[in-house]
Amino acid sequence: MLNKNKKKRVITKPLSGFMELMPAEQIVFNKMFDTIRQTYEVFGFIPLDTPILERAESLLAKAGGETEKQIYQFKKGDTNLAMRFDLTVPLARYVAEYYGDLVFPFRRYTMGKVFRGERPQAGRFREFYQCDIDVVDNGQLDLQFDAEISSIIYTIFQKLGFKNFTIRINNRKIFDGLFAELGITKKSSNIMQAIDKLEKVGNEAVKNELKKLLLSPEVVERIFNFIGLKGSSDNVIAGLQSLGIDNIQFKNGVKELVKVVSLIKQFGVPESNFTVDLTIARGLDYYTGTVYETFLDDYPEIGSVCSGGRYDNLISHYTSRKISGVGISIGLTRLFNQLYKKGILQTSEPTLTKVLVLPMTEDVKYSLEIATKLRKNGISTEISFVQGKMKKRLRYADRLGIPYVVFIGEDEIRKGVYTLRDLVTGNQKELGERELLTKFSKK
Amino acid sequence: MLNKNKKKRVITKPLSGFMELMPAEQIVFNKMFDTIRQTYEVFGFIPLDTPILERAESLLAKAGGETEKQIYQFKKGDTNLAMRFDLTVPLARYVAEYYGDLVFPFRRYTMGKVFRGERPQAGRFREFYQCDIDVVDNGQLDLQFDAEISSIIYTIFQKLGFKNFTIRINNRKIFDGLFAELGITKKSSNIMQAIDKLEKVGNEAVKNELKKLLLSPEVVERIFNFIGLKGSSDNVIAGLQSLGIDNIQFKNGVKELVKVVSLIKQFGVPESNFTVDLTIARGLDYYTGTVYETFLDDYPEIGSVCSGGRYDNLISHYTSRKISGVGISIGLTRLFNQLYKKGILQTSEPTLTKVLVLPMTEDVKYSLEIATKLRKNGISTEISFVQGKMKKRLRYADRLGIPYVVFIGEDEIRKGVYTLRDLVTGNQKELGERELLTKFSKK
Repeated sequence: MLNKNKKKRVITKPLSGFMELMPAEQIVFNKMFDTIRQTYEVFGFIPLDTPILERAESLLAKAGGETEKQIYQFKKGDTNLAMRFDLTVPLARYVAEYYGDLVFPFRRYTMGKVFRGERPQAGRFREFYQCDIDVVDNGQLDLQFDAEISSIIYTIFQKLGFKNFTIRINNRKIFDGLFAELGITKKSSNIMQAIDKLEKVGNEAVKNELKKLLLSPEVVERIFNFIGLKGSSDNVIAGLQSLGIDNIQFKNGVKELVKVVSLIKQFGVPESNFTVDLTIARGLDYYTGTVYETFLDDYPEIGSVCSGGRYDNLISHYTSRKISGVGISIGLTRLFNQLYKKGILQTSEPTLTKVLVLPMTEDVKYSLEIATKLRKNGISTEISFVQGKMKKRLRYADRLGIPYVVFIGEDEIRKGVYTLRDLVTGNQKELGERELLTKFSKK
Repeated sequence: MLNKNKKKRVITKPLSGFMELMPAEQIVFNKMFDTIRQTYEVFGFIPLDTPILERAESLLAKAGGETEKQIYQFKKGDTNLAMRFDLTVPLARYVAEYYGDLVFPFRRYTMGKVFRGERPQAGRFREFYQCDIDVVDNGQLDLQFDAEISSIIYTIFQKLGFKNFTIRINNRKIFDGLFAELGITKKSSNIMQAIDKLEKVGNEAVKNELKKLLLSPEVVERIFNFIGLKGSSDNVIAGLQSLGIDNIQFKNGVKELVKVVSLIKQFGVPESNFTVDLTIARGLDYYTGTVYETFLDDYPEIGSVCSGGRYDNLISHYTSRKISGVGISIGLTRLFNQLYKKGILQTSEPTLTKVLVLPMTEDVKYSLEIATKLRKNGISTEISFVQGKMKKRLRYADRLGIPYVVFIGEDEIRKGVYTLRDLVTGNQKELGERELLTKFSKK
């Protein structure tokens, strides 16, 4: 209820870590969102929307450590609630709950906000959009799905307007096999975390970190021989095969990688846009096969803009069935923010309106009718209802960057025409109704 | 982190009051969502997305009583947080914060989830989508905006596939003037709340409630003479003018209503889809002029599916400027749920996929290439990567209701063709690449 006497001013700035955009920015953001959504749909993914608020025990089944501390949790009545912190955990819960009604392989996309109450830092958000796809199946999932994922990443970043980007691919089995061969399996998590930082901190720092893990110089050298394999996908694969590692896990990993790389090419992803990168480890424990990261070559400092991989046991907390999956996530809020700050994104006017109908008579019937017709034809139209001088009324169109004005005065009504002015060129022309409507529908 | 030993099963059902849909339902929901969004955009509204989580003090500035109890609030670190419970309060905060950078009249739409922890009942949700538009301005806002809102409601429900719906319009000044004339202004809130229930509980119950408010029988009779005015918009308006009420507020209200009704007709909204209804009061205190409710004539039990109105002081808690506005809200989650339960909505298959490319050879290059081309042409395509017998592979398409399969075997590859089967008719035909791609782009 509105308390008319209470006139205290409250803070109107959003909390730090919560993105809020101006109209022109929001329009650009939504275009990116729509591009991703359309691509997911054209690749045959089904939309899924799960609640933002869930039982804390459901969301936290898998969490722990740092993640758990970041989760927004609270109690309402008798229920412990939590806000979702990713889209994968809700997917796992969903698949377990509706298992009998879903058709497998189940391909779903979800694009929505997730929440992490971490300490805010530049470029990090507490509320942000994730755009996820996953293919999950009860039992084995063919490697062709892994390759198809790369085709989706390629299509999205191309449609977003990028030419220079690289999808980096690796396979976790290769790491696992190598570590088994070297007898350092127990330390694998820590080693992979160290290697994950290679790009950021450089060789020497990673070597020092590995030494701190009490690895022998020989082992460190073998790891570096391994992650030092560079060049084209085929070169790296040849290098892997020549390392002479006789571990079955390693060999399976290489075999999978060979097949995935071959299929990626058949999907038409150019070699300039993907590569095998043996340093890609992905911190998360649950990946078991192919892993992906995607970098914008011209802006490496942004880090990976699309990551994911293959997992075999994700859903085990919710069901005893073995569900395999492969998926990726795009952190759209962060991506947009980084690109926008760098001025890379195409800008937009702060409106979607194409035509401002401007009545100059008291009787506005003729104006309202043509506005309704323009709208019926799918043309974003506003009507100038603002009182005042022509200059002031045109200033509205000008400030918003509305490209066309349709003037309607006594003359136009009598002659049954519409005066269309292109505000960019200043050109002005009398058009009949049909001409006016088709002029825009052609655009 | 995944704890491999912890195999406790957790609850996978969403909380009560939180909608979660199956794929076929989600597709129908999204279509409704998109229809509303497209209509808002074609009417020249700008997208706006504000955070779901805000400072509790910002969101609660206007709240109180029942609303405040329903809000999900909690503390994280030193900050009192709340989840938004509508989209109007965040709009008010946004306009206050970015006032200098916005162009007025500011037309924005927001479609997103809001949260209310009320006691769950059939058809009520704790997490639900609202689809709002508002036009706000610094100073006066022409009545033509009020009429335009009706044109938007009309367009949306028509596009959603409804023929029989009625936008009911009233003006709060009429009530206010009448109450002043009758000397019962102080009781106006309670009286309007009683009248709001007329449809549900009937005349006698409302009369009893009014008597409980200590209104004299004469006053109750005059109120019922007033709200008893029925018929076409013109009839009701004539009736209002003949009541002989000499209050200036009342007269202004009637004048505004006359103008708005006349403009609604000029916008092309048929008289069968709107009416003046003097019982529409809208519970909320902040409305000051035109108010709207929309009913599906064939399903009156659903109640209003789109409501809103004109307000003059909404933003006063955040700024000392006087901001007027007019807007509406569609509670999409509730609307979808009600329509779906009644079986009114057009159903969908649980997929968006149009074509399943089915390779029958080991080498899938030719199959992947045509899938990529179909996708480039905007045709939702999947590839059958499932191993096994043809029957099993076709069963996937069948269960999802994918309408077309493209078979690719040795023959097709050798001849450079594609065998397209229409799974509905069973018809099958060999097509060249161009024929295949254009067949679908024509659809």
